[in-house]
Amino acid sequence: MSRISYITNLEEWASSFLFQHQITVRFSETDMFGHLNNTVPFTYFEEARIEYFKSLGFMQEWVAADVDAIPVVADLQCDFLKQIFFNDKLSIHVKAEKIGNSSVDIHYMATKQDGSVCLTGRGTIVQISKSTGKPIQWAADAKNLMEKNKMLLEKK
Amino acid sequence: MSRISYITNLEEWASSFLFQHQITVRFSETDMFGHLNNTVPFTYFEEARIEYFKSLGFMQEWVAADVDAIPVVADLQCDFLKQIFFNDKLSIHVKAEKIGNSSVDIHYMATKQDGSVCLTGRGTIVQISKSTGKPIQWAADAKNLMEKNKMLLEKK
Amino acid sequence: MSRISYITNLEEWASSFLFQHQITVRFSETDMFGHLNNTVPFTYFEEARIEYFKSLGFMQEWVAADVDAIPVVADLQCDFLKQIFFNDKLSIHVKAEKIGNSSVDIHYMATKQDGSVCLTGRGTIVQISKSTGKPIQWAADAKNLMEKNKMLLEKK
Amino acid sequence: MSRISYITNLEEWASSFLFQHQITVRFSETDMFGHLNNTVPFTYFEEARIEYFKSLGFMQEWVAADVDAIPVVADLQCDFLKQIFFNDKLSIHVKAEKIGNSSVDIHYMATKQDGSVCLTGRGTIVQISKSTGKPIQWAADAKNLMEKNKMLLEKK
Repeated sequence: MSRISYITNLEEWASSFLFQHQITVRFSETDMFGHLNNTVPFTYFEEARIEYFKSLGFMQEWVAADVDAIPVVADLQCDFLKQIFFNDKLSIHVKAEKIGNSSVDIHYMATKQDGSVCLTGRGTIVQISKSTGKPIQWAADAKNLMEKNKMLLEKK
Repeated sequence: MSRISYITNLEEWASSFLFQHQITVRFSETDMFGHLNNTVPFTYFEEARIEYFKSLGFMQEWVAADVDAIPVVADLQCDFLKQIFFNDKLSIHVKAEKIGNSSVDIHYMATKQDGSVCLTGRGTIVQISKSTGKPIQWAADAKNLMEKNKMLLEKK
Repeated sequence: MSRISYITNLEEWASSFLFQHQITVRFSETDMFGHLNNTVPFTYFEEARIEYFKSLGFMQEWVAADVDAIPVVADLQCDFLKQIFFNDKLSIHVKAEKIGNSSVDIHYMATKQDGSVCLTGRGTIVQISKSTGKPIQWAADAKNLMEKNKMLLEKK
Repeated sequence: MSRISYITNLEEWASSFLFQHQITVRFSETDMFGHLNNTVPFTYFEEARIEYFKSLGFMQEWVAADVDAIPVVADLQCDFLKQIFFNDKLSIHVKAEKIGNSSVDIHYMATKQDGSVCLTGRGTIVQISKSTGKPIQWAADAKNLMEKNKMLLEKK
């Protein structure tokens, strides 16, 4: 059993991702302790999550100038399993763990080139109205896409 | 009851902080959705946590050039309760929730100028050896300081 | 004479600022070489420039939701005179050096607590239309305010 | 003639780069004006400069734990020719313009996917001693490598 609340079995969990995105640690992302600063993984999670949404085809709409629906972060967490250093090449794995009416729980895993897990994380994204701040339900096709993607994972 | 796992009663929890640090949201910290980017609160948490440690008198040692013991982040989480905007003046409240042998669980709360809570968070800091990566026990006086500080909170 | 192209006489130049803004170097702004990362001073310049514009009373308008005129950076430069470290307290000095029809040349100087100059910089800000991208002339009162402020400097 | 002091002829200058590095603009790098924040290009310059140094084979030494010689930025400048947006794919071109005994003047150019130039820049890097802060001459082979690379450019 894992000490991380959102992971029941680390090995099983680690094998359940279909999507990944590559990152190289920037020099400016290190700090004076000589490793990646603890605030940076959330930038990687955002970049990888957006690439995941782009792969499903629905980031384009969110950044169109006149659209009222935007995705916002409701919560975020990250567990730091291994120190990360300048120039490390990381794979950031992303999956939609649980799909609600206007929200989705996203899981993240970062692995080093030797395959070892250095970061795990999760967080809920909610689609809201820019003008009212209230949640907006997923369009049927967006929800379908995420659910198909999730079923692929479960069959895997 | 709260939906946030590390808070039993939000009102009680919110009143249990002694230390706070002021932040003004930078323009460069906003994103194209017009609000504070979701990766930035962790920078505020780090800044406020360090000010908290400085107020207890033990940050100076950690950043001395020849010291082997450094504090690292083991995990971090943040719940986003309200949107935050450019130029918002935030109070970042910090407390040591639980003190272990070589670790401490830190809680965070950000409030706006009207007193409303916009962010809550927590995360474990572990003191490790830079050279071996292994945990290093708190010096007796550091642990005492945090515990005294915590007792003050409980008497409050 | 100074080796910096935009400064004829460093002493004279350094004494010609009226406005300043305080910054404390964040831990997350250092890098693995143990000092402030070279990309960060531009964040300080932006923060101080905005505080300067706020002190003149015309930042509020630029960030109003429905306004078409926004200030953009046309160029930026920075000279690094002294290394800067975690927790350094810097004064970022700002002045409008030359005011055009739709642009303003801003000068910057950062000093440490001992008064020594650690950074100098300059850059042109242009007011443009968000929709067309074309320059928009300063409103008469904005230009007046900057010019009055500049005359104060010259009388100093 | 160009209005940019370090460029005599933009077309000629633009054709004089051999090395380039690809960047995709992150969402977290935009600001509330809807475009890339002006402080971010310096992060791209640093990343591309390091990739350039890596391609010549001498970044590895600088980040080794026990080495006293480190490269620091003496000055930096950037001209913003075109607005840059979320998800833009940029090529950051880098060349060593002038090689001194312990310093090198680096030039930068960012182009969009349509080939248009959106950013130009330059800045001096100096090799210094971490302990004394004094300049350290380039090793003969490092200087040779940069000079060979520069001659390739000139023959081009």
